[in-house]
Amino acid sequence: MAKKTYRSMDDFAAACGVSRPTLSKYFDDPTQIKEVTRKRIEAALKKSNFEPNLFARHLNRKRTKNIGILVPTMSDPFYVQVVSLIELELRAKGFWPVQISSHTRPELEEEAVRTLLSLKVAGAIVAPLGAGSRRSALARLTDAIPVVCFDSPSAFDLPFVGNDNAQSVAAIVQYLCRSGEPPVFLDVPHMMANTNERTESYRATMRREGHEPLVIECESSPSWEFERLGYEQMQRMFARGGLPGKTLLCANDRFAFGAMAAAFASGLKIGRAEGCDIRIAGHDDHPLSRYTCPSLTTMAQNAPEIAAKAVELLLKSVEDEEADRKVAPSRVILEATLVMRESA
Amino acid sequence: MAKKTYRSMDDFAAACGVSRPTLSKYFDDPTQIKEVTRKRIEAALKKSNFEPNLFARHLNRKRTKNIGILVPTMSDPFYVQVVSLIELELRAKGFWPVQISSHTRPELEEEAVRTLLSLKVAGAIVAPLGAGSRRSALARLTDAIPVVCFDSPSAFDLPFVGNDNAQSVAAIVQYLCRSGEPPVFLDVPHMMANTNERTESYRATMRREGHEPLVIECESSPSWEFERLGYEQMQRMFARGGLPGKTLLCANDRFAFGAMAAAFASGLKIGRAEGCDIRIAGHDDHPLSRYTCPSLTTMAQNAPEIAAKAVELLLKSVEDEEADRKVAPSRVILEATLVMRESA
Repeated sequence: MAKKTYRSMDDFAAACGVSRPTLSKYFDDPTQIKEVTRKRIEAALKKSNFEPNLFARHLNRKRTKNIGILVPTMSDPFYVQVVSLIELELRAKGFWPVQISSHTRPELEEEAVRTLLSLKVAGAIVAPLGAGSRRSALARLTDAIPVVCFDSPSAFDLPFVGNDNAQSVAAIVQYLCRSGEPPVFLDVPHMMANTNERTESYRATMRREGHEPLVIECESSPSWEFERLGYEQMQRMFARGGLPGKTLLCANDRFAFGAMAAAFASGLKIGRAEGCDIRIAGHDDHPLSRYTCPSLTTMAQNAPEIAAKAVELLLKSVEDEEADRKVAPSRVILEATLVMRESA
Repeated sequence: MAKKTYRSMDDFAAACGVSRPTLSKYFDDPTQIKEVTRKRIEAALKKSNFEPNLFARHLNRKRTKNIGILVPTMSDPFYVQVVSLIELELRAKGFWPVQISSHTRPELEEEAVRTLLSLKVAGAIVAPLGAGSRRSALARLTDAIPVVCFDSPSAFDLPFVGNDNAQSVAAIVQYLCRSGEPPVFLDVPHMMANTNERTESYRATMRREGHEPLVIECESSPSWEFERLGYEQMQRMFARGGLPGKTLLCANDRFAFGAMAAAFASGLKIGRAEGCDIRIAGHDDHPLSRYTCPSLTTMAQNAPEIAAKAVELLLKSVEDEEADRKVAPSRVILEATLVMRESA
């Protein structure tokens, strides 16, 4: 069925059966109008070729100097670190950051988008929730304001800044192979696109190095409590008779913390020194990874550059928006650095 | 010199030499007007008995459902934990949280206040920066909207929710005395009121238990990087010939993480088990404290209740505000729970 086309906001308002001011209000801030009216407008939008973004953008031209930052959770220090850097960078450039977390819940990500729109932010930097994201939530945001993604790319064709997981996992796998027994990969549940990239890079690198890859999938149900997942997975392996190898590469540092705690509780000595029983490595260079016992060998994402590039791309989009220029979305992929410590 | 009194907004605008709409704008959102004008109004305010809050409140009556949350830093998982709980509680009650961090910098705390006012939040829950806070920043916020403090009380007479540091430190000192050598207290720099409370409770409890208190002051310059401070302080003590005792109570868990890492690096075996060299305990029940090697004995603040009470007090203040009721500020002090793990 061909979608209906409307010439103007008035035409479309009439078709929705709402007044023109109500329709304006909807594009300006969907939370200001009654839910029943909102639903009517949204149903009409689906059946039409009407381009709300064009109108929304004009309506919203008078925006604030506020920039929204939306992440899945602030309980993960990687997000905290990047968000802090983004905030400081924005403030240095005369913008005011406003941070909202979706608490890893799709319905709260959708609410967070509504809140950001009601605050009339000039743009947003978003780490999408991944598999759980509701497409409609991010669509509403990108229709209204410039958006840049970081950490995990979105289903939309948006500017993106992230870690080069192929490079970073290859670097640590090569290091572990060079310095001892090739690693077994302890994976996390795949909730985001970047976890796939890490697992694939592990497999490819092991084969290139002439070793058979061995990926241990996490059997706990998906969760963002990675320390607990790592602890439980190790306990399961111990219960089944022991570990599958003497070198474990964990998909992230938080999972490695849990794995280390479980190994320690089982009486194993962790480290690369003489007389140790097991090597454990992580990925991300969590702020606490230098203070674990022993300190954790890991890959440091280039957080300062991720933050700087995300802000740069966003402010460029905001300017282009103001100048009515359309630019192709950029993609910035940054290499990580091996941090050799005592654990592996 | 008696301060000048004004009867109305018009009178006061005339005295400032600004138009009435500009003055309204100032109370509505000080960031909307030129700095030179803002300074002129602020100078006039200081010399008068004019009560901006009254007018500001009337002007701002049409506020949003947004609630601001302002904390010194999100790099501290205690704030992350309480903020997350506050956010979920607010959302459950139909309010939308907006989080801003002052990155432990007084000038950014002041900017954060301006941002919150420009967002027209209906109220704010604040963990003040402590010693570094600029009095003017918080004054502007409390003049305009209801504010509740948590973690560390403010210099103002505001509703407050926090941990009972006298009780919590007494509980862990008693436990440590009961189960082994009395503890030495490794203190953090005193940037907030609640750190004094902890040190005083340690001293008082040790005396009550019949032991001489020994407080090791942190010699690093004040910083929120507590893990680093703990690590450095231990290194200093090792360099001077050794530790002052076999049981160390750290002022918070993050400091304890650093202390544990330094003890481990020096070859000491940490724990309460037979054959261990040193016991280390913390305070706060940091999310990672159960995953350290060994797991950390600590006091768990009642984070869920701190969050619930802060939201309850704030929403009550918002209602009272709307009903033009004046109520006495409340103070809720919550007990913490001993979490016995392997480190002490």
